Amino acid sequence: MTDLPTHADIHEEGPREGFQIEPGPISTADKIRLIEALAETGLQHIQVCSFVNQRLVPGWADAEAVVGGFKAKPGIEYTALWFNANGLERALAFRDKLTIKGAIALTASEGFTRKNLNRSHAENVEAMRKQTALHLSSGIPVDRIGVMAAFGCNYQGDIAPAQVIRTLEDGLAIAAEAGTDVTMFSLADTMGWATPARIERVLGEVCARWPDKRLSLHLHDTRGLAVANAHAGLRMGVNRFDSTVGGLGGCPFAGQKGAAGNICTEELVLLCEEMGIRTGVDLDKLIEVGRMAEGIVGHQLPSELIHAGSLDAFRRKAA
Amino acid sequence: MTDLPTHADIHEEGPREGFQIEPGPISTADKIRLIEALAETGLQHIQVCSFVNQRLVPGWADAEAVVGGFKAKPGIEYTALWFNANGLERALAFRDKLTIKGAIALTASEGFTRKNLNRSHAENVEAMRKQTALHLSSGIPVDRIGVMAAFGCNYQGDIAPAQVIRTLEDGLAIAAEAGTDVTMFSLADTMGWATPARIERVLGEVCARWPDKRLSLHLHDTRGLAVANAHAGLRMGVNRFDSTVGGLGGCPFAGQKGAAGNICTEELVLLCEEMGIRTGVDLDKLIEVGRMAEGIVGHQLPSELIHAGSLDAFRRKAA
Repeated sequence: MTDLPTHADIHEEGPREGFQIEPGPISTADKIRLIEALAETGLQHIQVCSFVNQRLVPGWADAEAVVGGFKAKPGIEYTALWFNANGLERALAFRDKLTIKGAIALTASEGFTRKNLNRSHAENVEAMRKQTALHLSSGIPVDRIGVMAAFGCNYQGDIAPAQVIRTLEDGLAIAAEAGTDVTMFSLADTMGWATPARIERVLGEVCARWPDKRLSLHLHDTRGLAVANAHAGLRMGVNRFDSTVGGLGGCPFAGQKGAAGNICTEELVLLCEEMGIRTGVDLDKLIEVGRMAEGIVGHQLPSELIHAGSLDAFRRKAA
Repeated sequence: MTDLPTHADIHEEGPREGFQIEPGPISTADKIRLIEALAETGLQHIQVCSFVNQRLVPGWADAEAVVGGFKAKPGIEYTALWFNANGLERALAFRDKLTIKGAIALTASEGFTRKNLNRSHAENVEAMRKQTALHLSSGIPVDRIGVMAAFGCNYQGDIAPAQVIRTLEDGLAIAAEAGTDVTMFSLADTMGWATPARIERVLGEVCARWPDKRLSLHLHDTRGLAVANAHAGLRMGVNRFDSTVGGLGGCPFAGQKGAAGNICTEELVLLCEEMGIRTGVDLDKLIEVGRMAEGIVGHQLPSELIHAGSLDAFRRKAA
């Protein structure tokens, strides 16, 4: 249970998560500037946009302009998010620039599935069956199952680990029927219910059942425990995380609405590197990009580290 | 190394830490209101003020009015902070209301001792020798050694665990000479250098050397890792923490100056309770007090949890 990984893959989702929720408006040029700056920090995976309905998510009305506009750096995987055939089609127009991969996206909470998607879990399974077939028929690999609300749900309360197991079983059945091989489970703490104890329990059961699958964590800092949850995950051997520079993705009206952002990429990098887990990221460069992100959104971001500066910067001064 | 404690003692320092740094002015009545509200949450230890030079710390110019004014709740330990004979004398005037205990306060960093106190470590040891004698001759017990900058220092960089050990040895020599018995070591991450890996290393060496001493952690969230550090401490068996409601104690100009506050009491309570470690605190009541603290200081506090609400509140709604 304390198999620390030697390295961790960090999937930066700041542009996608941040610009969908910030009130803005934020210029296309600023979005491109942030993406290009992130690519200079050593991050290898950057999610650059959502191809979604622009009436529902006006912040991503310019998805095509952003993806068309940024200069891709060789060796970096740029990804996007979509939820339906129309979004997929828009993503496929950038097949040369984006890494297009599908996922079987399920939710461990029936209550959240109904609220978020207006579907029952059974209807969602059916929708994912169709989407997986669509992906595969378009030549898009599907090797990942995502489970939202894997650690608890505002509508349903605690989610039993057995429910996460059942949801993964549903996903594996979809994959088996479609004839694709799933190698990764991505567990999302969509509403900030995870705690270190719960991370250990859920991951313990999932690892015991499927010891060969790679696990990824998508953590939110809704109740301030995201970094402690990442620490618990690393101790369980998790070596893949989603995160956002500066903690982007939080509601800018957090005082009223209470939605904090994702785990900050900088704080995750600091945590890993000081545990001897390599991330490949230049933390001082990333902190500069976090400060740039603050300038772009025009308000303070949740990251403490971008305000305090890295330990290495102080070490150099003290030496 | 994973001897989880069954309970944790939380020492609330929000009033003392917060009001010394907030630009305010904050009324005496509001300070008293916060202290009295904290006493209704189940917290057993509340540090209510600093008896310090009012030219240097104008926020505590009204220390006497605050201590004289609040209504003490039976069973709760109210404490104060002082740094010299004059401060001690002011505290002793409230001997009936405050729990007056001394500590041998040292710093593991010579660089910080010089910057903060304008003394060498040797001069500081000499000062603590005198202060310990003064405390004991006034009938004040001295049973604790505090070590500041125990995990790193902005002026000196990393602090070797061996340096923490030497500092504790110096403190024990002072105690032995004065004829008092030290039962507790309090290690402070004064400048936010702690990481889970460093907590494990330092505490590991201290516990190996002195297995009979109780350890306490005083954590700052300067770089966003405070909760992960508390998690690492709990896993090492630490069952006493200082913290501040709402994360009070941060610099209100954090965007510029970069000084985040202490670990939030609410988030520490959530972490403990969800690990099955009892704190005796009613988290929903404490969250209300965190919101009150935000109203009193007039700006958003770092605690995410006071904005999001407790898990139990959502559990009740979902049930």
